[in-house]
Amino acid sequence: MKVGEKWYRTVWFEDSSIKLIHQPVLPHKFEVRSLNTPDEACIAIAEMWVRGAPAIGATAAYAMVLAVINADDDQFQQQVESAATALKNTRPTAQNLFYGIERIKRVILSETSRGKACKAAIQEAEKMAQEESDACERIGEFGASLLEDGMRVLTHCNAGWLACVDWGTALSPIYKAKRQGKKLTVYVDETRPRSQGARLTAWELGQEGIEHYVIADNAAGHLMATGKIDAVIVGSDRVALNGDVANKIGTMSKAMVASNYQIPFYAALPVSTIDFNCATGEEIPIEERSPDEVHFTWGLNDQGEFVRVRTTPATSTAFNPAFDVTPADYVSKIITELGIHQPDSLHTLPR
Amino acid sequence: MKVGEKWYRTVWFEDSSIKLIHQPVLPHKFEVRSLNTPDEACIAIAEMWVRGAPAIGATAAYAMVLAVINADDDQFQQQVESAATALKNTRPTAQNLFYGIERIKRVILSETSRGKACKAAIQEAEKMAQEESDACERIGEFGASLLEDGMRVLTHCNAGWLACVDWGTALSPIYKAKRQGKKLTVYVDETRPRSQGARLTAWELGQEGIEHYVIADNAAGHLMATGKIDAVIVGSDRVALNGDVANKIGTMSKAMVASNYQIPFYAALPVSTIDFNCATGEEIPIEERSPDEVHFTWGLNDQGEFVRVRTTPATSTAFNPAFDVTPADYVSKIITELGIHQPDSLHTLPR
Repeated sequence: MKVGEKWYRTVWFEDSSIKLIHQPVLPHKFEVRSLNTPDEACIAIAEMWVRGAPAIGATAAYAMVLAVINADDDQFQQQVESAATALKNTRPTAQNLFYGIERIKRVILSETSRGKACKAAIQEAEKMAQEESDACERIGEFGASLLEDGMRVLTHCNAGWLACVDWGTALSPIYKAKRQGKKLTVYVDETRPRSQGARLTAWELGQEGIEHYVIADNAAGHLMATGKIDAVIVGSDRVALNGDVANKIGTMSKAMVASNYQIPFYAALPVSTIDFNCATGEEIPIEERSPDEVHFTWGLNDQGEFVRVRTTPATSTAFNPAFDVTPADYVSKIITELGIHQPDSLHTLPR
Repeated sequence: MKVGEKWYRTVWFEDSSIKLIHQPVLPHKFEVRSLNTPDEACIAIAEMWVRGAPAIGATAAYAMVLAVINADDDQFQQQVESAATALKNTRPTAQNLFYGIERIKRVILSETSRGKACKAAIQEAEKMAQEESDACERIGEFGASLLEDGMRVLTHCNAGWLACVDWGTALSPIYKAKRQGKKLTVYVDETRPRSQGARLTAWELGQEGIEHYVIADNAAGHLMATGKIDAVIVGSDRVALNGDVANKIGTMSKAMVASNYQIPFYAALPVSTIDFNCATGEEIPIEERSPDEVHFTWGLNDQGEFVRVRTTPATSTAFNPAFDVTPADYVSKIITELGIHQPDSLHTLPR
């Protein structure tokens, strides 16, 4: 999507390195970083320089390209396996991480020479990135059909283009609806502890000129109860075969409140986010992240410096699960690049 | 309650002024401030130097004492009426604000001379503060009977002694249970945007040596879904006659999730928080506060300075309702100084 006058992807491959928009400092600074080794990619994923399941998937795919580029001719298979293992250990929940790694690894290991493997790997990674971008655009087209002019939409976390290669999942239908001339108002959950809503979604919507209000995560229920929300739309980090949706912590509570007030709750995601080997949400591993994410908040101080502040007492402990699972019963529709699905119909999708 | 070795109330009257613990800077600094006029009390309430319905009520009662102390002999009735109006305009939701003002105003206006009115007002305000403290201690005794050794309790916002004159409402049962030898673990919702959980509840629990974990507001639902919460206990800013409970924004969503997982949800409050003239929660006015509370977070920077940081883009707007209403259907029990009640039985209480 456009940043100023230039069209960017969230992550891309250039000059034998991964380039990505450095997300922890957004919206306060716009920086592009380079990653030159799989180890650097591991740090970037674990530290959330890049986040959002589809963007993590693309980064991991490109990291597998770096693995084979940097490998020795006579041991590239083992070195690629070892890079795959390291990458898989960065974050446990996002299905696309595993999808991206496996997809490129399979291509690399089917080649007998490192040279051929390099060429095949970069081709496949670029194909995958383009497919993800196209999938997100299609999600936008299908999803826009659910959004009517004047609707007020709630979203949680960031499932925009910054979470994907381009377009986004939850936000793509909003961008497409806008291009169709529909005027929408978006309520954006702040999304503590990492504030992806307040930082990234608000920034994306601002860039696209879409009316939006950032709210405390606590306020979403009240807005639904008082008739201010017509639809909820979120992304996903992993969807189980039965339609249970893992997404950023806090999603499930919103879905339950939406259900109580008969407000449609949509999850938008590429098919690559569906874990066809996972029967139900109970099998999805939920990442626990550092308590410091709860203790501290990052932002601009009054001098314009990007700093953190601690809100909790120095002696208090914190607990920080990063995702939750919304039971399929609370999901109205799942939107993919293949169409709009009932949550209990995912087994009919091509794998 | 004790701060270090000294017993404090949240607010008290001394040397013809109101003294209060200055809450915006807690837990990072412990400061006592003096208020010498009703106008200063209006600022203190509106700016949340003191917050929590019972503490607001006591502050307003003492502010009425300041009004009559500072009034002219021949116009004290009008000046007291005008102070009452100004105080009522500070915050719309907390029932105790109106209760405290009306209670002291009635006493003042029943006297014919300002001198007598001063004496009667301070007597009544002190009586009310003592009653509120006693009520909170009784709430603790009744509430502790619902808490068993080993329980894991979720609370939202701060309904501890800092929200009251002493003891607290939601936290009082926890303090009493601890004195009965029960070991509890408390999960503390951060409670954005003002972070009363992360700042005040965590600090109170730390002072009392009670095991606690601060969590993002978003995490409460996941903890309930994964069997980590045995009970939820919150305070209230106003309760309608039908048992609908207004409390800090975010409470209602927690109650709905708790209900889905059959986790008991308790609201603890003195009878002075019940608005017997309010039939249902729909009639309770919900305060909207400054968007800046969403844009900014206050805390200690790495240099130990108390500063704010902005998380949202400079051009984004925010919306900041401060309370929500939990329908009585989602409230398991209401705990007052008179006992443990079904939410639909409040009409039987003495007024």
